[in-house]
Amino acid sequence: MINLAVFGAGRIGSVHAVNANNLGSVQIKYLVDPVRGEHQALLAARIGAQNVSADTVFSDPSIDGVIIASSTNTHAELLLKAAKAGKAIFCEKPVSLNFSTVETVTDAVDASGVDCLLAFQRRYDPDFRFVRDRVWSGDAGTLEHIVMHTRDPSAPSLAYISHSGGMFRDQAIHDFDMARYLLGEEIVTVYAVGNCLIDKAIGNAGDIDTAMVTLTSASGRFVQMINCRRAPFGYDQRLEVLCSKEVLYVENRPQRGVTIADVNGFRGSPPMNYFIERFAAAYRDEMLAFVDMIETGSKPLAGIRDGLEAQRVAEAAIISMQTGTPIHIGPDWRP
Amino acid sequence: MINLAVFGAGRIGSVHAVNANNLGSVQIKYLVDPVRGEHQALLAARIGAQNVSADTVFSDPSIDGVIIASSTNTHAELLLKAAKAGKAIFCEKPVSLNFSTVETVTDAVDASGVDCLLAFQRRYDPDFRFVRDRVWSGDAGTLEHIVMHTRDPSAPSLAYISHSGGMFRDQAIHDFDMARYLLGEEIVTVYAVGNCLIDKAIGNAGDIDTAMVTLTSASGRFVQMINCRRAPFGYDQRLEVLCSKEVLYVENRPQRGVTIADVNGFRGSPPMNYFIERFAAAYRDEMLAFVDMIETGSKPLAGIRDGLEAQRVAEAAIISMQTGTPIHIGPDWRP
Amino acid sequence: MINLAVFGAGRIGSVHAVNANNLGSVQIKYLVDPVRGEHQALLAARIGAQNVSADTVFSDPSIDGVIIASSTNTHAELLLKAAKAGKAIFCEKPVSLNFSTVETVTDAVDASGVDCLLAFQRRYDPDFRFVRDRVWSGDAGTLEHIVMHTRDPSAPSLAYISHSGGMFRDQAIHDFDMARYLLGEEIVTVYAVGNCLIDKAIGNAGDIDTAMVTLTSASGRFVQMINCRRAPFGYDQRLEVLCSKEVLYVENRPQRGVTIADVNGFRGSPPMNYFIERFAAAYRDEMLAFVDMIETGSKPLAGIRDGLEAQRVAEAAIISMQTGTPIHIGPDWRP
Amino acid sequence: MINLAVFGAGRIGSVHAVNANNLGSVQIKYLVDPVRGEHQALLAARIGAQNVSADTVFSDPSIDGVIIASSTNTHAELLLKAAKAGKAIFCEKPVSLNFSTVETVTDAVDASGVDCLLAFQRRYDPDFRFVRDRVWSGDAGTLEHIVMHTRDPSAPSLAYISHSGGMFRDQAIHDFDMARYLLGEEIVTVYAVGNCLIDKAIGNAGDIDTAMVTLTSASGRFVQMINCRRAPFGYDQRLEVLCSKEVLYVENRPQRGVTIADVNGFRGSPPMNYFIERFAAAYRDEMLAFVDMIETGSKPLAGIRDGLEAQRVAEAAIISMQTGTPIHIGPDWRP
Repeated sequence: MINLAVFGAGRIGSVHAVNANNLGSVQIKYLVDPVRGEHQALLAARIGAQNVSADTVFSDPSIDGVIIASSTNTHAELLLKAAKAGKAIFCEKPVSLNFSTVETVTDAVDASGVDCLLAFQRRYDPDFRFVRDRVWSGDAGTLEHIVMHTRDPSAPSLAYISHSGGMFRDQAIHDFDMARYLLGEEIVTVYAVGNCLIDKAIGNAGDIDTAMVTLTSASGRFVQMINCRRAPFGYDQRLEVLCSKEVLYVENRPQRGVTIADVNGFRGSPPMNYFIERFAAAYRDEMLAFVDMIETGSKPLAGIRDGLEAQRVAEAAIISMQTGTPIHIGPDWRP
Repeated sequence: MINLAVFGAGRIGSVHAVNANNLGSVQIKYLVDPVRGEHQALLAARIGAQNVSADTVFSDPSIDGVIIASSTNTHAELLLKAAKAGKAIFCEKPVSLNFSTVETVTDAVDASGVDCLLAFQRRYDPDFRFVRDRVWSGDAGTLEHIVMHTRDPSAPSLAYISHSGGMFRDQAIHDFDMARYLLGEEIVTVYAVGNCLIDKAIGNAGDIDTAMVTLTSASGRFVQMINCRRAPFGYDQRLEVLCSKEVLYVENRPQRGVTIADVNGFRGSPPMNYFIERFAAAYRDEMLAFVDMIETGSKPLAGIRDGLEAQRVAEAAIISMQTGTPIHIGPDWRP
Repeated sequence: MINLAVFGAGRIGSVHAVNANNLGSVQIKYLVDPVRGEHQALLAARIGAQNVSADTVFSDPSIDGVIIASSTNTHAELLLKAAKAGKAIFCEKPVSLNFSTVETVTDAVDASGVDCLLAFQRRYDPDFRFVRDRVWSGDAGTLEHIVMHTRDPSAPSLAYISHSGGMFRDQAIHDFDMARYLLGEEIVTVYAVGNCLIDKAIGNAGDIDTAMVTLTSASGRFVQMINCRRAPFGYDQRLEVLCSKEVLYVENRPQRGVTIADVNGFRGSPPMNYFIERFAAAYRDEMLAFVDMIETGSKPLAGIRDGLEAQRVAEAAIISMQTGTPIHIGPDWRP
Repeated sequence: MINLAVFGAGRIGSVHAVNANNLGSVQIKYLVDPVRGEHQALLAARIGAQNVSADTVFSDPSIDGVIIASSTNTHAELLLKAAKAGKAIFCEKPVSLNFSTVETVTDAVDASGVDCLLAFQRRYDPDFRFVRDRVWSGDAGTLEHIVMHTRDPSAPSLAYISHSGGMFRDQAIHDFDMARYLLGEEIVTVYAVGNCLIDKAIGNAGDIDTAMVTLTSASGRFVQMINCRRAPFGYDQRLEVLCSKEVLYVENRPQRGVTIADVNGFRGSPPMNYFIERFAAAYRDEMLAFVDMIETGSKPLAGIRDGLEAQRVAEAAIISMQTGTPIHIGPDWRP
């Protein structure tokens, strides 16, 4: 039996807690949330977990691993404590909105030798995974370029935006990660443009709602990203990978399998609108991978250093947008 | 240079005259239409054809072939005259609404030895042809059953309906033909139900607007037909052929290649709504085949006997609907 | 807390037991299976259920309802016992392969006044339900005809076939039920053809693998069913409802949201191949409805009499196929 | 009757000559081609045109307009002569590969007052036109950003590439034009990356085969272009316009309306592979517009100044790619 502790009983913490609890071999011993709301108490009761202090978790030798899904500003400290206590780590992105903190924590976790899965869940989505496997099998030929569309169903609240770190660090970071993952090499040039075309209030909150980002990889291949905070039809999350023999597409997943035809044409369903629903299978597989990592030492699809590298690209995108010039980056570049 | 005469300058006659005229090697010498309207005169002028009597056509030794696209009640006589005069024949379906006339004319044309292409244009449509060729190549495995949808964009006028011979002889006959063509064998049992579900006025005119027909072939394979006089979205003309290794579908052809996405989903274009537009390529290829038949003696995809056999199935469908029982047919069966 | 007993720990019994157990308000007290295999023991342990005799279940006053998912030949007796004991019933179809038994049991259950949900799960599928609701709302206009495709991914084992009651009672019964459900009226004429076109061994086992069925409703509307035991691409489960303003389609659900394009075209994913996966949401919603029926007295989407009426149509289809004639049925008709 | 002269009897010249000749009110008097090959002679004979010198054309007062479809290096001189002679002009893009020549000729044609249609045929394509009309009608809301995919079915010959002016001037220019046309405003910033990822021989010939271009418009809206010389499945020519209420897509047009389903999934047809076929309707409508411009003075969808502005963007893209920086352009900018 694997004993786990979950930090954070919010939206994504609840998903992870339930997924972990559904695995036969897992016991969620602690569900730590300093703000003990009704929802948290119900969930804790349902899965048989206690709400204790973080220090109690880290000093309990029976705990095999921790799931860090609390608010972003707590990640760095919990990661350092977990590394010190030798607990396996599952951590939501980002490690920190401050890049130098990300570097420090990444180095510390690496040095500690603990296993760490960084929760870029899209790597675990069956569709994205199918495409990655096909590209890497060679059946599709040589990867030449990538196009990614990421459009939210609607803009998040201004409160969320104000402490999100901005659209590049918050939303586009999944695309930066996917680009690196599919290419299997680092990004060396980043050009980004951004603007508020959907809602001026987002601009007043210091963020953008629409961006185009062009990435060039070390070997000279290209990645194009289209990012925005709203598509009229809902959540738009697509991938197109052009290889020499095949083009591989990850499509949106429809809400319904119903088509309605009338004099205006054939109307198909809008896509699943909520990322928790769209990526339900990814979250389950990600948790399975975490438990497998603890049990067998298997490598996760994304580690803590992947978080650092994706964030490096995000920082370069922000500076590119601000300065109007492409930014050249390498392992020593920092904002 | 091939010299042709066209009988009938209506909708379908005009299509055939223009298609024939566009072939470099064809001269349309005569465009025969007893009702010389303005449209006919314009078309004759455009293609350089004369309007003469039928007898003039058949006694002109320079005429290689005739295209019979006049009203249905003139087909039989023109076919017999063409056969007697030794002219190659392109004839619109049906030969006659009277089955015994069809038999008599078919036998006479056969006995004359003239080449005859019966204009089941769907056999010449590139999509239907692709499916037929794939089935017959064996790549799809063994054909097991067929499903066909034929729904008109809207019901024809009551005037048209009253002398159309009814939906089975007028519309469904193309499906009866396609069934025989794909199966490569005859139909032995026909069960049909029909009703007026769209417009009671059609029923008052003595016809139906909705039918389901089940065919059983000599070897025991099945064909299912869904026929009606209107689909809410327009013209619905689809084929589904289930073979042991593949299912082959002929889809509708959309009017536009545009999709519109909004909060209600993804809206694709309605299909091409007019059979003259949907089957434009089929009509061109059919005329090419007729000219090639004259020039090289090649066999057309459908001959006059195919018209007889399709009509035999249509007659059985009518009786089945009227009596409520399946009708067993064979080469000697007649209504 | 609702206390339930589950009869049968096989494939479908396990699905129901897990779904019921996942509802917060349900306790599965008994999981009854006379053949106590390892799988059953594991499941019982996981959900905290005991394996007892049927009589123990029915004499336990704390039991609110029973889920009958054992083998078909046990359904009738369990239904009668449950009705006598006053337990709410969730019963897998069919009640019995013997029609007069179905009638007897249906009358007994009805007379007992116990609530009974007959598990035609397709009525609970979100896509089929969406279509039914749209038809009944009137937004789509008047329903005129229905076309249903049901093709299994592959033929079941000959052992299964030999005690399945045949394809009409086993597979097509879901379509007979859906036809009645969508039309909101009874079927009065049934014409069916069937043959072994896929595998002659199925014929030797006394069954067919391919069928076409035409239903006529009391008001003269039509339903066409295409049923077979295998589609080359997998599970094919589609619905097309033509109404006067709209055509509504339930499509297959794809396994993946990935398209692969190469020189041969655009290749989309095959559909979900396993009915347990395809109808996962339907099974969950069906169990929710059962529990809600117990708690609030709400009416289920299908009751025991719906099982009887669907089976009446199946019996007529069998006789139609055997005799080659359409069968006219009514409330007093029996095979 | 409108009298026209066509310069150039190559691939595109032939299309225009045939389309013009098919219009009832047009006489192609001259088909000018200094290299009188067999193909040219046949076409001239078919449409009843003479092959004469350019000067003969321009000094013939009966000529209403000229169609310039000869090789690029002859466009500027023919445009100037046509402007001087007061002939209405239909001219293939580009005016010249030399930007200052384009400027000079554009000013001269403008000053002459002759009507000129610049052959950006995509503006006349029914699908692109439908989208443009919908955007401009306001029904789709406010246009926020555009994504365009242009991938050739395969790289052109190295001979073609060497005098094509490079991929931005030759291929991407249609996208630059479409961007301006849809936005209704000018581009102010251009960022382009390019590389040889498909075939190194293209690089040795001094060109690229893959590019990503980001455009920013005067009002701060974005256009993203994905351009390359080959897609594994054929010709890829798509448009995506995100507006505040709708996303509008122009899809590829399939070769066939046939789908093949087997154990590997559902395989749809590859798209029409040849731009002459894909844009057949656009070429016809463009010629209709030219004749209408002569007959009624109607404004064409693209004039000579549109060619200049699209080329300005192309020149900026080239410099951006070469220098690695975004280029800011305005009406006075030149390379």
